[in-house]
Amino acid sequence: MSLLVKGGRVVTAADDYVADVYIADTTVTTIGASLDIPADKVVDATGCYVLPGGVDPHTHLAFDLAGTSTADDYESGTIAAAFGGTTTVVNFAQQQRGEHLRAAIDRGLASAAGKAVIDYGQHIVLTQLDEDSLSQLDELVAEGVTSIKMFLAYPGELMVDDATLFQVMERAGELGAMCCVHAENGPVIDVLVRRALKAGRTNPSWHGRTRPELAEAEATHRAIAVAEMANAPVYFVHLSCTEALAEVTAARDRGRPVFAETCPHYLFLDASVYDDESFDTAKYVLTPPLRDARHHAALWRGLRTDDLQVVSTDHCPFCLNGQKTLGEGDFSRIPNGGPGVEHRLQLLYAGVVAGRLPLQRMVEVFATAPARLFGLYPRKGTLAVGSDADLVIFDPNATTTISAATHHMAVDYSLYEGWQLDGAVRTVVSAGVPVVENGLFVGKPGSGRFLRREAGSPQ
Amino acid sequence: MSLLVKGGRVVTAADDYVADVYIADTTVTTIGASLDIPADKVVDATGCYVLPGGVDPHTHLAFDLAGTSTADDYESGTIAAAFGGTTTVVNFAQQQRGEHLRAAIDRGLASAAGKAVIDYGQHIVLTQLDEDSLSQLDELVAEGVTSIKMFLAYPGELMVDDATLFQVMERAGELGAMCCVHAENGPVIDVLVRRALKAGRTNPSWHGRTRPELAEAEATHRAIAVAEMANAPVYFVHLSCTEALAEVTAARDRGRPVFAETCPHYLFLDASVYDDESFDTAKYVLTPPLRDARHHAALWRGLRTDDLQVVSTDHCPFCLNGQKTLGEGDFSRIPNGGPGVEHRLQLLYAGVVAGRLPLQRMVEVFATAPARLFGLYPRKGTLAVGSDADLVIFDPNATTTISAATHHMAVDYSLYEGWQLDGAVRTVVSAGVPVVENGLFVGKPGSGRFLRREAGSPQ
Amino acid sequence: MSLLVKGGRVVTAADDYVADVYIADTTVTTIGASLDIPADKVVDATGCYVLPGGVDPHTHLAFDLAGTSTADDYESGTIAAAFGGTTTVVNFAQQQRGEHLRAAIDRGLASAAGKAVIDYGQHIVLTQLDEDSLSQLDELVAEGVTSIKMFLAYPGELMVDDATLFQVMERAGELGAMCCVHAENGPVIDVLVRRALKAGRTNPSWHGRTRPELAEAEATHRAIAVAEMANAPVYFVHLSCTEALAEVTAARDRGRPVFAETCPHYLFLDASVYDDESFDTAKYVLTPPLRDARHHAALWRGLRTDDLQVVSTDHCPFCLNGQKTLGEGDFSRIPNGGPGVEHRLQLLYAGVVAGRLPLQRMVEVFATAPARLFGLYPRKGTLAVGSDADLVIFDPNATTTISAATHHMAVDYSLYEGWQLDGAVRTVVSAGVPVVENGLFVGKPGSGRFLRREAGSPQ
Amino acid sequence: MSLLVKGGRVVTAADDYVADVYIADTTVTTIGASLDIPADKVVDATGCYVLPGGVDPHTHLAFDLAGTSTADDYESGTIAAAFGGTTTVVNFAQQQRGEHLRAAIDRGLASAAGKAVIDYGQHIVLTQLDEDSLSQLDELVAEGVTSIKMFLAYPGELMVDDATLFQVMERAGELGAMCCVHAENGPVIDVLVRRALKAGRTNPSWHGRTRPELAEAEATHRAIAVAEMANAPVYFVHLSCTEALAEVTAARDRGRPVFAETCPHYLFLDASVYDDESFDTAKYVLTPPLRDARHHAALWRGLRTDDLQVVSTDHCPFCLNGQKTLGEGDFSRIPNGGPGVEHRLQLLYAGVVAGRLPLQRMVEVFATAPARLFGLYPRKGTLAVGSDADLVIFDPNATTTISAATHHMAVDYSLYEGWQLDGAVRTVVSAGVPVVENGLFVGKPGSGRFLRREAGSPQ
Repeated sequence: MSLLVKGGRVVTAADDYVADVYIADTTVTTIGASLDIPADKVVDATGCYVLPGGVDPHTHLAFDLAGTSTADDYESGTIAAAFGGTTTVVNFAQQQRGEHLRAAIDRGLASAAGKAVIDYGQHIVLTQLDEDSLSQLDELVAEGVTSIKMFLAYPGELMVDDATLFQVMERAGELGAMCCVHAENGPVIDVLVRRALKAGRTNPSWHGRTRPELAEAEATHRAIAVAEMANAPVYFVHLSCTEALAEVTAARDRGRPVFAETCPHYLFLDASVYDDESFDTAKYVLTPPLRDARHHAALWRGLRTDDLQVVSTDHCPFCLNGQKTLGEGDFSRIPNGGPGVEHRLQLLYAGVVAGRLPLQRMVEVFATAPARLFGLYPRKGTLAVGSDADLVIFDPNATTTISAATHHMAVDYSLYEGWQLDGAVRTVVSAGVPVVENGLFVGKPGSGRFLRREAGSPQ
Repeated sequence: MSLLVKGGRVVTAADDYVADVYIADTTVTTIGASLDIPADKVVDATGCYVLPGGVDPHTHLAFDLAGTSTADDYESGTIAAAFGGTTTVVNFAQQQRGEHLRAAIDRGLASAAGKAVIDYGQHIVLTQLDEDSLSQLDELVAEGVTSIKMFLAYPGELMVDDATLFQVMERAGELGAMCCVHAENGPVIDVLVRRALKAGRTNPSWHGRTRPELAEAEATHRAIAVAEMANAPVYFVHLSCTEALAEVTAARDRGRPVFAETCPHYLFLDASVYDDESFDTAKYVLTPPLRDARHHAALWRGLRTDDLQVVSTDHCPFCLNGQKTLGEGDFSRIPNGGPGVEHRLQLLYAGVVAGRLPLQRMVEVFATAPARLFGLYPRKGTLAVGSDADLVIFDPNATTTISAATHHMAVDYSLYEGWQLDGAVRTVVSAGVPVVENGLFVGKPGSGRFLRREAGSPQ
Repeated sequence: MSLLVKGGRVVTAADDYVADVYIADTTVTTIGASLDIPADKVVDATGCYVLPGGVDPHTHLAFDLAGTSTADDYESGTIAAAFGGTTTVVNFAQQQRGEHLRAAIDRGLASAAGKAVIDYGQHIVLTQLDEDSLSQLDELVAEGVTSIKMFLAYPGELMVDDATLFQVMERAGELGAMCCVHAENGPVIDVLVRRALKAGRTNPSWHGRTRPELAEAEATHRAIAVAEMANAPVYFVHLSCTEALAEVTAARDRGRPVFAETCPHYLFLDASVYDDESFDTAKYVLTPPLRDARHHAALWRGLRTDDLQVVSTDHCPFCLNGQKTLGEGDFSRIPNGGPGVEHRLQLLYAGVVAGRLPLQRMVEVFATAPARLFGLYPRKGTLAVGSDADLVIFDPNATTTISAATHHMAVDYSLYEGWQLDGAVRTVVSAGVPVVENGLFVGKPGSGRFLRREAGSPQ
Repeated sequence: MSLLVKGGRVVTAADDYVADVYIADTTVTTIGASLDIPADKVVDATGCYVLPGGVDPHTHLAFDLAGTSTADDYESGTIAAAFGGTTTVVNFAQQQRGEHLRAAIDRGLASAAGKAVIDYGQHIVLTQLDEDSLSQLDELVAEGVTSIKMFLAYPGELMVDDATLFQVMERAGELGAMCCVHAENGPVIDVLVRRALKAGRTNPSWHGRTRPELAEAEATHRAIAVAEMANAPVYFVHLSCTEALAEVTAARDRGRPVFAETCPHYLFLDASVYDDESFDTAKYVLTPPLRDARHHAALWRGLRTDDLQVVSTDHCPFCLNGQKTLGEGDFSRIPNGGPGVEHRLQLLYAGVVAGRLPLQRMVEVFATAPARLFGLYPRKGTLAVGSDADLVIFDPNATTTISAATHHMAVDYSLYEGWQLDGAVRTVVSAGVPVVENGLFVGKPGSGRFLRREAGSPQ
């Protein structure tokens, strides 16, 4: 099949020009000022941006947590992603205690089979290091799972100790794999959480009040130090605050291969939501919690000057009714996480409109940088000859209204209910085939492919 | 005329793919996996990189200094630039004391007329602020001279005081023009120079010993502070040392629009050349002087993490015999400057080979970022549909040997005499027309065009 | 004459104990738990602190400025100082343009003769460097004038250029003299002042609005850099803001001999006074101007951890009526400065009461550190065997009410009108002789002695 | 009994003067220029310094470790201390796993009984936090044990987790007690140690090669962050390197109550000793290990500008023969620690002679600051009316030669064998009674008293 996208304004991490884009089968083959090539399908993109499809390196689809599972499986989750212009997700497969890492990946692949509508990769979440786990990493990397996540929070459950962190980072560094770190000092936070509960402070607001910025900054500093001792790169997931960003910035100023993502909710929402002590606030029980509004400017600055490289969603949706409610009477039992995979592009574009981010830099943090850092580039993350034909046609003159009533995520609330944003996704193409057209899903569950990712040395 | 470049590996600031590039007249119109379009001329680039033509924002062609004039005029200088893959220069036009700024620009334009073989812009060097000079800036910006250079060195000659610096920065900020600053504390340096001469320390080595790093760092800090008070961006020319870089880095970490270039000689040469007390050392009398080798790693780090955005040449050539010799017996009379416009790309590529810079980042500091910062993008600085057809075909498997005997600059020495480097420039195209082919100049003096540059707000 | 102070709580920079202090003639000779030595006079200090007499290294008595002279001469000024527990001042003698430095000192000595009631030293203010001025410094140091002040503000009047700053610092460093710097970027400030006046913004509030913190921080950084190039120590007078303190702190963290004082008005007052646009605000026209209240905590922190070493008063009083009024209609003509010499101790003690400063550290910044930095220690600045018998008996249980109606400074307003403070000065002894007793002046004009200060290398 | 010390130069943290010192019973009662008071004993100190007796807040006397016990018990250890001018030690009493804290203190008191020749306090080392341990802290503080040490190294043995660290700090902060932290990242170090042993790298040199600076800096940063979250002060024992000092400095610059000691061996010895791969190197198996010589200047700088407050010895002696040899064939089994309590003053004075530390600051880090930080001031740490009569007569014109053959520590080697130093301890007085006179021990085991220390809030 062939597809010709005509007249759009092509924007990549480096370029911005008007051109036609011709796709043969799954690949972009020609870009030109005025292409006159016959095509099975022609899409008019006049007046619109034509962007590389987004890469969201932080999703939790079909993810078991706190006795339940995220509301989105690979089907609803990737459909929602596509509606947000995202054509690749890297999803987390989590090792259960005592389990071979390979088993976790296999469960992840089984979850995706027949469901994903866009391409996907997998990270492994390592929760335990046995004698032979390090060699398990070699196996995984050989099969295209080139990133390992570890937690410094949740002692007794997910947290690894510094010896594990160090050894895994060291091996990952040798393999060219990337370690992703959830950086919060879990033991200190747990003291605060237990104390709050003991004092009868059980409502969801206390989630936000028991996870101080310093606990995040400390763990960020520690992981940077351990990575330096291990001579390895490190990537911080969901960085939320000025203090943690300062640690990343300082490391990068010294030339260390340290990277970080933030998420739209840290850029647009703030801790004032926790002033509402009703259970409704459980919608905002995600980790790290929302921070004071004072952090917004610093995070945008970080994105602008490349101290933050990526905006991911940490999409981890649980319904307010039936799932979040598991924690009624005990905020620590509320499944942590929030929905987001569907609106990353529209929210980032609000940053462009507000003058906080140049348009090309938006493309970079949305698609190019995550593709590069996670071994998917140049197949993904750009719009160039030879790249996968993943693209979004985005109309800057239309508007998007966000609502749980209309979104495609299988969750009963939105973090941005009622927000009106400039710009709208019109058409999304994955591997040369439209999956979203004019607001309708036109793709096919199961068409998404597992991506074997490259190992390498990011800079 | 049309031109088809076939089979090369196209590398931009964001991309890296194999494709054919089709040029109609002066513009790139089509890029494709395998273009089958008839063309007046076909160039085979198989096995080579196809790069955007370089933008060198710091050259002194036909520049009067210290009672002489730079060895290269617009003809020999732009020919040499082309041999180094540079297809755009922004040259300095310098206000003489008491002169209307416009007059300096007109002299610059006259110098270029009938000579330039590639496109060129002009910066204005402001040495004096009269009551109405600020409005002169408005005129210049309107005509495409959107950058103003000021000196904090050379008191009594070129140096402006902080009141002038502040006022010009403020107006420039309002106009969307960029202020370029030569940052060295001139008054302190002059004390050191006069003292050395008085003590009979007259040979060229003393040039290097009388301009401390701290004098550069101090002036860098000062200009950043003044720019912040003026609410304007600032760009530092020829940043040479760790201490000055630290000031730029700190400002960027705070989100200030502060930018800087370094030059190949600060990345590859060092102050040990000043150990030779013979007059031959006059070759290295350029400002700031070469620094200790300890600075190299920091400068490469800055380029890698975008604390330095540009590598320019500060091409300011004077022959050792007949020009530099004006300062025999008094190093302060040696015309300051060195040749460099011809080898920027080959030296940067040595950084790529050594693992100090990713290939795409090399393109960014060589072409894209200077084009963007100086109002030339997207016409210049990238290789995309609609951009000017300025490109270099660079063969990574060939080698380049540098020698004054063979280079195209009209100067009798090289800073890199005898160096053998990986990679060689094979063909250079300016505005769709080859100017260098297989080591021969095939262009035409006078074909270069004056570039009216845009004003804007860099980020 | 002999004097016995009984039963007080002796507090020095290091100690705090109850003891009797015996003074023979002008010197402390014995300190003991219960001295049974006959004395000409016995003073009961039970329940009171016995502190070393204060050293105020920054006063402008009999100082000509802006066509007038400070309201206090050496007589009224030193009497007021004594009422504030200060027993030594170091006053500024200012070189007039073209004048030999010695002449300025001689004028200073003449002003003091027959008037001073406590001991005093002199700094020289250098405003111009002639060929032979550097050797003039040698002469002055030999006579006990071991500190030189220079201005980076007031271009065309007091400001020295960086070449002068560098050369004087270098010579001072060799001589063991200390350079004091008024750090504000004068040229930038002058642009702001002229612009405000041109726009009709002529009232005193605009004094506060035309001297940004960054102008102080920039000059502070510059003087530190120049001092480092000159291999000399540097002391900043009247440091007023967080940004300047950060520069001093960073230098000290690198081990540089950099020192600074702040003044009570920067610790207790803030820029909100400039909200009053009436001419009454001329009371607060002092330089640097008062800053936002956000700076207070940082300055106290600096005092606590020794990044600020001294609290001086910058006592520079002009009557609101008749003197400040010279600047009605043009704030730039208001004589700059405010009264303060009388209440340094009482205000510092308010910091102790508020928990911002330990009591011994209060003594250090009030007396010991300035004595040490300015070559007066151990003769001045402490209460020890062999030191000059300069001491204050301070009753922490009494209170002080400040008012222009009752203060001893010859100026018609107070910066702290109506303030009630804990603690009161009861008795002040200078060189073994009471000068203040129970709120009455009992000293003798002319009894104060000129202090030849030592040169040395502070650490 | 009464004692009169005549004609010495009394030096305290703030003062320096010639005077006689009269002691009645155990207390200093009078200090005077020329005291004519009858005394049971008169000591001539002409030409000598009279200093406050030293306070060594870090000794391990009668300390069980690695299956052996330190070579010095309270008798030999305090005799050696006295020979070094130290008249107070604060020794570590270590909780065994499962033990009530009180039991550890009682064991410590029993060890001292009948043996100590100078006064002593005790710290508690907390290795485990049970449900009720926090209230045990209240008990101890009430009895004068106002400092708690915790380890971030030695997982499985001494290390506490961050939850324990946080809770103990928080309670200590409320009680006015001080937490002392051994800051090294134990888990990472243990990986390095196990790996070295597995690779057959078993000799003592590998002790020095498996404990990187970054492991210390990381733990320092972490403890500072945890202390800030706990709103408590923190004190770092045996800080050894630039990187850790930078963390302390940065915290103090922000006004945090963060304190640290270093030790003479970090100021005078360096890692080059580990080049000797023989077992003799076991002498230098102490923790943290010796660092490269590059760190010396930074540590002296820290002492000078109060980023380091104390020099302690970490006296933890094990004989090379019979004790260190437990680790032949496995460096991890070598009892960690080195002797030092006898030569702190003489080594510090070498720093004074070298111009690295002012004399008064030497007294402060040797005696005054540790007394203040650990609740002993003003009883200990100074020489003032009312203070305990603990003093040293130190002859700056004599010399000291260090040798295991002559020292008084019960250990068979010295870290400074054969060193000749300026200055010598002549007489040491503890509580009014000479314990060392002209090189002879004249004290009495058992005369030392247990010191109940105060709680408080250091600044």
